[in-house]
Amino acid sequence: MNKSPFLLILFTLFFLPAHAQKEDSITIKKIFNEELTNGKCYHNLDYLSNTIGGRLAGSPEAAKAVEWGYNLMKEQGFDTVFLQEMMVPHWVRGAAEKAYFKSSSGKKIVSVCALGNSIGTPSKGITASVVEVHDFDELKKLGKEKVEGKIVFFNRAFDETKINTFEAYGGAVNQRGQGAIQAAKLGAVGVVVRSMTNSLDDFPHTGAMRYDKEVTRIPAVAISTIGANLLSENLKADPGLSFYMKTNCMWMDSVLSYNVVGQINGTAKMEEFIVVGGHLDSWDTGDGAMDDGAGIVQSLDAIKLFRSVGIRPVHSLRCVFFMNEENGLRGGVKYAQLAKQNGEKHLAAIETDRGGFAPVGFSINRGGDTLKYLNSWIPILKPYGIAEFTGDGGGADISPLESQGVPLLDLVPESQRYFDYHHAPSDTFDKINRRELQMGAASLASLIYLLDKYGFR
Amino acid sequence: MNKSPFLLILFTLFFLPAHAQKEDSITIKKIFNEELTNGKCYHNLDYLSNTIGGRLAGSPEAAKAVEWGYNLMKEQGFDTVFLQEMMVPHWVRGAAEKAYFKSSSGKKIVSVCALGNSIGTPSKGITASVVEVHDFDELKKLGKEKVEGKIVFFNRAFDETKINTFEAYGGAVNQRGQGAIQAAKLGAVGVVVRSMTNSLDDFPHTGAMRYDKEVTRIPAVAISTIGANLLSENLKADPGLSFYMKTNCMWMDSVLSYNVVGQINGTAKMEEFIVVGGHLDSWDTGDGAMDDGAGIVQSLDAIKLFRSVGIRPVHSLRCVFFMNEENGLRGGVKYAQLAKQNGEKHLAAIETDRGGFAPVGFSINRGGDTLKYLNSWIPILKPYGIAEFTGDGGGADISPLESQGVPLLDLVPESQRYFDYHHAPSDTFDKINRRELQMGAASLASLIYLLDKYGFR
Repeated sequence: MNKSPFLLILFTLFFLPAHAQKEDSITIKKIFNEELTNGKCYHNLDYLSNTIGGRLAGSPEAAKAVEWGYNLMKEQGFDTVFLQEMMVPHWVRGAAEKAYFKSSSGKKIVSVCALGNSIGTPSKGITASVVEVHDFDELKKLGKEKVEGKIVFFNRAFDETKINTFEAYGGAVNQRGQGAIQAAKLGAVGVVVRSMTNSLDDFPHTGAMRYDKEVTRIPAVAISTIGANLLSENLKADPGLSFYMKTNCMWMDSVLSYNVVGQINGTAKMEEFIVVGGHLDSWDTGDGAMDDGAGIVQSLDAIKLFRSVGIRPVHSLRCVFFMNEENGLRGGVKYAQLAKQNGEKHLAAIETDRGGFAPVGFSINRGGDTLKYLNSWIPILKPYGIAEFTGDGGGADISPLESQGVPLLDLVPESQRYFDYHHAPSDTFDKINRRELQMGAASLASLIYLLDKYGFR
Repeated sequence: MNKSPFLLILFTLFFLPAHAQKEDSITIKKIFNEELTNGKCYHNLDYLSNTIGGRLAGSPEAAKAVEWGYNLMKEQGFDTVFLQEMMVPHWVRGAAEKAYFKSSSGKKIVSVCALGNSIGTPSKGITASVVEVHDFDELKKLGKEKVEGKIVFFNRAFDETKINTFEAYGGAVNQRGQGAIQAAKLGAVGVVVRSMTNSLDDFPHTGAMRYDKEVTRIPAVAISTIGANLLSENLKADPGLSFYMKTNCMWMDSVLSYNVVGQINGTAKMEEFIVVGGHLDSWDTGDGAMDDGAGIVQSLDAIKLFRSVGIRPVHSLRCVFFMNEENGLRGGVKYAQLAKQNGEKHLAAIETDRGGFAPVGFSINRGGDTLKYLNSWIPILKPYGIAEFTGDGGGADISPLESQGVPLLDLVPESQRYFDYHHAPSDTFDKINRRELQMGAASLASLIYLLDKYGFR
């Protein structure tokens, strides 16, 4: 029994010599001390959330956010601040949505909102009977006969037994993304999708859906989980109930927009980059504090910390505010395109887009020895709650860099509360805890510090 | 480099054979699945917080909470449910407190509340000039000359560099607990104490203070952190400003109250107990959802899970709703007294009193081989976020069992948000996330399952 600590120490020493570990621990402590006492991410997020607000790509608010981001980076004394321009889709929600159903027990109003990218209903709305399904197999079994002319109600709930709520999301989100295509193939006139959340609340949670060129476009809405349960119960009692929905969303012309990039030059490998970022756009119904204002302000503080703590990085460090993650990914695509075009080498790309909660780890799109090596850093990160590197991969904005062989990493915060707010009117600044947000920023800076110093071995 | 996984596996195998580990992993998964789909802790906490509300020992609400707890346990089909009676102190706040200061720049109202156990001010309140200090040394250096007749303002903030916020609390709370004694020794007429929180908010955070028989009793209040900063700034500009405070608290006669205890009998060691609990009383200004309603409902679900998952424990398991943790600890003292009197042996006592946040570990009042042994369980607990057993010890209610040699453990949830709500009007049910609360209950059940099966080796 007494051998075990020896083995554990041996395991640790295998990768980082003791003196390096001590020096790194001291530096990482400095990073956290600085961020927790002088970090500006909470203050910056207050402005982005409460003064600019929700900022869907192509909106005036998104344009304001770009200007704000550019000016903010300029104030940091970075070596370079620049914009990367691109055209972004411009979808607008229009006036507030309305929906109700009339059953044998009367009329009940339910909370809905148009799914992003959806077409609107005709101006008089859509009224139809409803068929409830839980997956595409169930839908296909019903066949055209039972679906044609109806609204398809996708009501598969999150699997509550998934500890990581992103897994539950992954298990439910195809209803939102592809539901309209699958339903329209069988002649449905609209889709109503249960909100993507663990929470039982009355907020409709929006998010991107898509169409297929070969299939008729039909309007799609999200319904709150309370509304979904109510509708489901009433359908059991009265399968012939009629559902009314009216949405006012539409597509506008594409708009010129930008990624905002700030850079600190490396001392020895100036032409090799470590990039950290989140996305500047957000959905329109909340103020986008969690998704992904938090990631934006954390990325900025993560890079700033190198200056304020006095660490001179070997590689050039970039902070990127990506545009249009939510309904197009044009910013992520543009960044990767320019990186390729300019022959830029990236040591690593890191995303923070899982909410401003207390960090618990990192993920990377690598396994094997690389993952084992990164986990050898855990002893010096554990005092800050970072318990593990997992092999789940990185975020959406950085994903276009994958084909260039760039290792992609994600900050992983505690996930239980994320989908309470995700894409909902409840995604607002008051849900942010200052210290949790700062811990994430300091964790990112610590990861960048270690990657810059040791690479992936 | 390739040897490391081997070493890690060896480290694990050292304690738990592989087949046991697999069986335990399956059981623990069942525990979490059951709690996350059918757990009742969130529902129960809703009732305790929103229907009964704040429940300071001796209050009518505390009596209602005892009745509720007793009936609730009775409904669970436990083998035994009983009360342990004791007299508890009965301190009442009375009408809302008032405070303001008048400086050269005018009158400013600040948020204060009486500290628990404090005497009230005279009916006309107290008006005096203020001396600001940050610790007892600074106070002593000022001496009687500069303190007599004044209000002492203790304004030492939380140390933001402490990652675990309980350490920051520990580094500041002597101002609240002993401030009135130290100030009165030098002739002060009252104390104003900066609220014990990381948060910059306008809630006064109450909590227990004490007097010394040898020293004059003077009224003590907590001031919100926003109020504390305002007062401090104004004192710099006008050191002679006058502060007014009026509180209406008082002591009533002691009241008969109870711990509520539920028990499932052990199959092989019925006379040996594992106890899990939290405290049923709370401060009066919020509804006590976090402190410690969360612990109460988690403890109940933790024991219930043995029945619902079908685990027959070797030892007898007890769930205890302790009374009067906040301003007397009479419940904890009574439980330990009766355990000794009845010759009860306790394998372990576990407390949950750090808020209903996502669990990250456990602590125990043991080090050395015991701590190493418990950490050998981490591989099977890590999928649920439990990353470490630390040697920080257990909670207040179970602490009187220490002298009987009982190992004391604590559930350790993520700590960043705890002091935002601690002892404040903002400690309300809406701050609770259902899944985080349930994860804590399932973690407790998993710990009890492992302790019951393996003990401490």
